[in-house]
Amino acid sequence: MNVVVAQSGGPTSVINASLLGVYRQAKAWDAVDTVYGSLNGIEGILNDNLVSLNEALATDETMALLRQTPSAALRSCRHKLPSYEQSPEVYENIRRTLEKHDIGAFFYIGGNDSMDTVHKLSAYFSLVDCPIRVMGVPKTIDNDLMVTDHTPGYGSAAKFVATTMREIIRDCTVYDLNSVTIVEIMGRDTGWLTAAAALPRLNGDTAPHLVYLPEVPFSVDAFVEDIQRIQRYSRTVVVAVSEGVEIDTLGDYQSGKVDNFGHKYLSGIGKCLEDVVRERIGCKVRSIELNLPQRCAAHVSSLTDVEEAEGVGAAAVRAAMQGVTGHMAIIRRVGDTPYRVDFDHIPVSQAANAVKYVPREWINEQGNNVTEEALTYIRPLILGELPVITENGMPKHFTL
Amino acid sequence: MNVVVAQSGGPTSVINASLLGVYRQAKAWDAVDTVYGSLNGIEGILNDNLVSLNEALATDETMALLRQTPSAALRSCRHKLPSYEQSPEVYENIRRTLEKHDIGAFFYIGGNDSMDTVHKLSAYFSLVDCPIRVMGVPKTIDNDLMVTDHTPGYGSAAKFVATTMREIIRDCTVYDLNSVTIVEIMGRDTGWLTAAAALPRLNGDTAPHLVYLPEVPFSVDAFVEDIQRIQRYSRTVVVAVSEGVEIDTLGDYQSGKVDNFGHKYLSGIGKCLEDVVRERIGCKVRSIELNLPQRCAAHVSSLTDVEEAEGVGAAAVRAAMQGVTGHMAIIRRVGDTPYRVDFDHIPVSQAANAVKYVPREWINEQGNNVTEEALTYIRPLILGELPVITENGMPKHFTL
Repeated sequence: MNVVVAQSGGPTSVINASLLGVYRQAKAWDAVDTVYGSLNGIEGILNDNLVSLNEALATDETMALLRQTPSAALRSCRHKLPSYEQSPEVYENIRRTLEKHDIGAFFYIGGNDSMDTVHKLSAYFSLVDCPIRVMGVPKTIDNDLMVTDHTPGYGSAAKFVATTMREIIRDCTVYDLNSVTIVEIMGRDTGWLTAAAALPRLNGDTAPHLVYLPEVPFSVDAFVEDIQRIQRYSRTVVVAVSEGVEIDTLGDYQSGKVDNFGHKYLSGIGKCLEDVVRERIGCKVRSIELNLPQRCAAHVSSLTDVEEAEGVGAAAVRAAMQGVTGHMAIIRRVGDTPYRVDFDHIPVSQAANAVKYVPREWINEQGNNVTEEALTYIRPLILGELPVITENGMPKHFTL
Repeated sequence: MNVVVAQSGGPTSVINASLLGVYRQAKAWDAVDTVYGSLNGIEGILNDNLVSLNEALATDETMALLRQTPSAALRSCRHKLPSYEQSPEVYENIRRTLEKHDIGAFFYIGGNDSMDTVHKLSAYFSLVDCPIRVMGVPKTIDNDLMVTDHTPGYGSAAKFVATTMREIIRDCTVYDLNSVTIVEIMGRDTGWLTAAAALPRLNGDTAPHLVYLPEVPFSVDAFVEDIQRIQRYSRTVVVAVSEGVEIDTLGDYQSGKVDNFGHKYLSGIGKCLEDVVRERIGCKVRSIELNLPQRCAAHVSSLTDVEEAEGVGAAAVRAAMQGVTGHMAIIRRVGDTPYRVDFDHIPVSQAANAVKYVPREWINEQGNNVTEEALTYIRPLILGELPVITENGMPKHFTL
């Protein structure tokens, strides 16, 4: 029997660690012969574009490189399967391709769209009494999936955000003048990653002074008052703001930029608030959009995250080999001191179609910072550093 | 005898390594008793705001932490001394303060403004037969100082840019669709840091496909043609552009944004070119401004840069102890295979008032990339990783 694995959706720093977890665990079963990779997610199966990973990952070195390479080595896609009722031929085509390659199990590493594919495909195979198993392996830097304690990819993104915030804090505090620095962080609907910007508090930093999550309403007037209050005791003000906060009303800020950036361009909130500070406070102000490196800065991956990403991949394989299908592997936190997790799996339908928000009680009453409980939750996820193999002073990457 | 050290200008990842180099070398001389730090650059001397570093840096651990902490531990300033003719009382005040603390030598770690201060102060002391020596220690991520082969701070900034470019390249190439990614890099007048964005070529990457430096004229029409030519063979196009390139004429791009961003806002060139691609090519396009982390991402410092930053600090102290004044420490490259440097010093007047540009012959004829010679020059400067001491998963920093 052979198996096939694919990657889908937005990249993370550890989506390849999950690929490695699937590969290694599958190879550990005598029943498994070849581990295929499907190129560009489900599209590789639709187009019969599979590659054998047995040779590509034959050595310890290639596996170590895959483990430290960000983004999807098998490339990605954003492909939503039509329903079986609409297009039964798509499903029959997938089945034919998988049967042609003697595939006994399909592992899909991805986000919500991929879990939807896992759900539909496994339901189809049950319907037609086809024994191929389909398992989901979660990934997202957003950490917004239900049931699993957290998602692989989040810990490394959080470590990058926390590390970069500390460095920006050092940089911002050198001059003896009033300044405001606004750091814009990814997360359209949830504030998990923005909450990680507050982690430098654990190392004694007083900044960031303000942390705004999309879970609570954002008022430009309150934002200006918050900054002015901090400026009474600190010349430097550092703000972390989620790209997803929604500015309350145009009435708050009449220049029209709110409309242009606050709503039309999600990634413009930092620039927009920079303009607000310049016009309404008038001190030195700068905005920094952390941007793509949040999901691909694998040179500063969390070792905990890397190991757990491998762990969910392996857990999905173990479950499939035991006959489970239509499930997603999850991480369960079984202890905080010391931090310990185990891996399990749940019907993929339980994870989809719902979003896990930062609990309101982990955000302070004023809605402008996170509580210690939030930091206690995030801290273990960023612990540990992956030793990085370099070449010419840069991380060495695996490419197919 | 005591000595005093100060830091000035924009931060880098290794300006504290130079501080450590000064401290350690000064402590190695029996003649030196206390090493003082002047807070906020020369302002600390003007305001008699000195702190003893002997206690703050008493342990190996505090020294190791200082070495890995970005930005200026003694804080910074942007203070240009008036001329002696204009304000002799300023100079007399400085002399009184230094004599009060029995200072025999003043070490100023900084950029052009600091070297101007070194020049003026050392000339004044010679004029009034005061034996206090004044030495400059260069730093700038821009690498635009004359005579010295390169400047401390550049290697770490270049390593961050190269590492981040590689990760962005991995991220950008996962989808099977046409896309353009534009990465905006610091460097208002010179393209040294932007040139470092081409280093991933050494590790086999074909991207970035285009690299635009401020040393050559930039044409929007040529930029659009460059991208379209690459799109004939590559779905993904990755562009590195210096914040300092000047867009040719408004005629090239009529939307008015050139005027707003290209000229008025130096840091807006990436966004401006993003709009150009969206309107004139119409494919998926994204711009990323690497921003402040270029000068403070010490978690990915170049070990070579850290060691050389210490080296120039130590060289300045050795020279001062031998009676030299009014000089700046420099790095001289004495070999490329293997890479070797030694440290020397030159009259600070030789370094100031001139800018070192990327040689035209290190830029290709079309002006849209750098040559192998440029990469051969930069490569050794990014080699080696500083082992980073962490706490709670984040780099541990030294603060006074």
